[in-house]
Amino acid sequence: MVLNYKAITKIIGMIILIIAISMLPSALVSLIYNEFSTLFAFIKSIIPMFIIGLILTLKTRPDSTNLKMRDGFAIVALCWLLASLLGSVPFMVSGYIPRFADAFFETASGFSTTGASILTNVEALPKGLLFWRSFTHWLGGMGILVFAIALLPTLGIAGHRIAKAETTGPTLGKLMPKMSDTAKILYIIYMVFTIVETILLLFGGMDLFDSLIHTFGSVGTGGFSSYNDSIGHFNSAYIDFVISFFMVLCGINFTLFYCVVHKHYKDLFKDGEFKVYITILISCILLISINLLYNNTYDTLGDTIRYSIFQTSSIITTTGYATTDFDLWPSFSKMILFFLMFVGGCSSSTTGCMKVIRILVLFKLIKRGIALRLHPHAVISVKLDGKAIPADRVSAITNFIFLYLGIVVLGSIIISWDNFDLITSLSAMVSCIGNIGPGFGLVGPSMNYSIFSEPIKIFLSFVMLAGRLELFTILLLLTPSFWNPDKAIRV
Amino acid sequence: MVLNYKAITKIIGMIILIIAISMLPSALVSLIYNEFSTLFAFIKSIIPMFIIGLILTLKTRPDSTNLKMRDGFAIVALCWLLASLLGSVPFMVSGYIPRFADAFFETASGFSTTGASILTNVEALPKGLLFWRSFTHWLGGMGILVFAIALLPTLGIAGHRIAKAETTGPTLGKLMPKMSDTAKILYIIYMVFTIVETILLLFGGMDLFDSLIHTFGSVGTGGFSSYNDSIGHFNSAYIDFVISFFMVLCGINFTLFYCVVHKHYKDLFKDGEFKVYITILISCILLISINLLYNNTYDTLGDTIRYSIFQTSSIITTTGYATTDFDLWPSFSKMILFFLMFVGGCSSSTTGCMKVIRILVLFKLIKRGIALRLHPHAVISVKLDGKAIPADRVSAITNFIFLYLGIVVLGSIIISWDNFDLITSLSAMVSCIGNIGPGFGLVGPSMNYSIFSEPIKIFLSFVMLAGRLELFTILLLLTPSFWNPDKAIRV
Repeated sequence: MVLNYKAITKIIGMIILIIAISMLPSALVSLIYNEFSTLFAFIKSIIPMFIIGLILTLKTRPDSTNLKMRDGFAIVALCWLLASLLGSVPFMVSGYIPRFADAFFETASGFSTTGASILTNVEALPKGLLFWRSFTHWLGGMGILVFAIALLPTLGIAGHRIAKAETTGPTLGKLMPKMSDTAKILYIIYMVFTIVETILLLFGGMDLFDSLIHTFGSVGTGGFSSYNDSIGHFNSAYIDFVISFFMVLCGINFTLFYCVVHKHYKDLFKDGEFKVYITILISCILLISINLLYNNTYDTLGDTIRYSIFQTSSIITTTGYATTDFDLWPSFSKMILFFLMFVGGCSSSTTGCMKVIRILVLFKLIKRGIALRLHPHAVISVKLDGKAIPADRVSAITNFIFLYLGIVVLGSIIISWDNFDLITSLSAMVSCIGNIGPGFGLVGPSMNYSIFSEPIKIFLSFVMLAGRLELFTILLLLTPSFWNPDKAIRV
Repeated sequence: MVLNYKAITKIIGMIILIIAISMLPSALVSLIYNEFSTLFAFIKSIIPMFIIGLILTLKTRPDSTNLKMRDGFAIVALCWLLASLLGSVPFMVSGYIPRFADAFFETASGFSTTGASILTNVEALPKGLLFWRSFTHWLGGMGILVFAIALLPTLGIAGHRIAKAETTGPTLGKLMPKMSDTAKILYIIYMVFTIVETILLLFGGMDLFDSLIHTFGSVGTGGFSSYNDSIGHFNSAYIDFVISFFMVLCGINFTLFYCVVHKHYKDLFKDGEFKVYITILISCILLISINLLYNNTYDTLGDTIRYSIFQTSSIITTTGYATTDFDLWPSFSKMILFFLMFVGGCSSSTTGCMKVIRILVLFKLIKRGIALRLHPHAVISVKLDGKAIPADRVSAITNFIFLYLGIVVLGSIIISWDNFDLITSLSAMVSCIGNIGPGFGLVGPSMNYSIFSEPIKIFLSFVMLAGRLELFTILLLLTPSFWNPDKAIRV
């Protein structure tokens, strides 16, 4: 047997249950705001899911609780796909997003923490649906599965394989001997950030609903807002700063916070990836500020720096919030933002994209390449934090970057069949696979993804999920030899 | 001593001499067409160069004729820079391109076989200058240095190091034990192609002048034309076909022609790179044709296929000729052309860009990456033509691709300071480093590079030369440890 189907079924049942339960807060929001038709839509979605989930979880008895890596990949891919499918039900049932392609896109964008929307007027949505939409960011941010891992041992299934297929970035430091303990620690940190940001936003004059929506969007590095003008709606330097701070914070490797909590402050500044992340961030803020000043884009130096900090933080962390229409910025600033869309935050953060650590290795490889041209017989290893990176990990990173770029090329060509201009098609692809949200041109920060045809919307939904799961997980399912282990891949 | 300065001086003297002599045919053209002021400009340029070149060659006596690799890199970089500087003199002296940045750009574009122009009206140029402009393509096509290598042994200097620093692509098969014999064979093939294409174009109704101009532009895969409408001026299916054929031909590894001449036809079809080159070419022609038909871009199927064949051949071979304004094509076709701008022809051809062999290895690496995810402990080597590629060569190819893309990113950001739209800035960079010529938007096939500021024009000139010399040669000169061998590069 190729896969442990029974164990997979049991886990999927559990995921359905989690999705159903996680809709309850949104139903409550509908109740509070007297949105009874929306509340009814939630109830109609939750009850069947809850029953099916419960049956699958309780009635399935796996012969073995041993999960192979293949099972892990299958579970992760199916689970995210299922979450995006089930999560889209309330949008369709309520009639606010009636078409499947649209609802699926919106939910995949939510769970993948992309934040790209097909809605032309977000403000027309009832609060219950707005809450659900942003709550998917929060769930997706740390990974629905890491959530599940924390519960899996209670079912007697080892969660390590699943985490391997899901976690973002090449290094997830094992903080605790047991995977489920690691997941719990990460979740506690995530919770603390959520609570602190919500409180800080309340201080900034937001009501509780808006505070939660924008906290979910920033700690999950998602980018959904309840306003058409995104964060620009509030026009408050304080709110800009709080959200910038939490976006940047959630772009840092979460295991580093554990070190900080345990007073190993030095670990933070010893971490090469963290240092490069901050360096890229500050350099881009400076370059963009200089360019905006040179072009007199804003009246004051203060505004220039404020918008530059917010937008750079938003793009590098793959959040995608906007306080201004950066598509109207001068070309130099836009070009920097465009290439930042390939970077992302640190590994094991809630951000998407290639991750800083891979960019760092890429630059070290270029440097080594130049050195080797001058000293062809030298043996030069690529070092990170003082230690040489093993050749197989360097090659895994190289492969990832090539695969990422290859998919961007192929995807951009596919998207361009809808015949929108080059920069729209290209930036839509780059933005979706990097889980950012806005791009340039017709998908700029003041626009949305409603322009695309339904096949392209569904394609982009898969792209967002593939980007969130670091490509291989979704891609492996498309590989014939995944389903037939005897058939080797020929290179 | 770091470099063998005396030997370098002697070779540079020889290069100056060659540039001076190679201006004679253009002077002759001026004489034939009664362009006396242009003829006078050529004479004023040739005489001082000839004298300086002769003195440097005859009076310099190297202590040693032994050239190290560093010397090779220095010679190649200086030589191409010098050629572009000296070659621009007639443009300035004649007053037709008075400004240095413009004249240098035009000449660097010529020698690097890019074909990008700052001229808004090519047809206003006298025939002598048009001839010189296209002749630089022809000289640059096979490499001024390969020319020199054939002469070097007469000076007692081994040319192997120079060829290594200059030749295009990762593999230059050594056909003959002596490098100078290889150079001669390649030049003979190049000559034969030049003569045959000129004759075929004469049959198509072109006069001798136009035939030569467009032969230089196609066998050198350059792209300069004597008409503002490029090849579209002739509006002849026969001429389109002849030029397409020779562009594609000169995108093939020249050492394969040697095999064909010696009746080893099978070698051609055993060559993996050749097969992929033809496959990419045909697939893109088909996809573009389907897209053009779907959008009713042309009235007839014949026209659709004709324009699609010509434009795809022109872009993949990095020539840049146009028979139609492809910037008006539907987005899908444009996106394919845009990404073709990263490919180029086969190694050891006259084309620029990354070269098919590197793209091929890139795809094999992606495939291996996916296989390794499924079988983490498997040992899978990357094979080419049935043989495993050594790890150091795979890593050299990876480094090259990363460096190439890194320079594209950095260059696009620099260019965008001039504040033209994203696709103009991006495609200008991609087109210049790939030695193609036209891009999209304001540098589209019906436009030119006159829009850019002088610093950006000079920057792009260096980009074109760096692209022609496969990046490392120019880049190494910027590396401190190149000049100070004791200082190692730290990775």
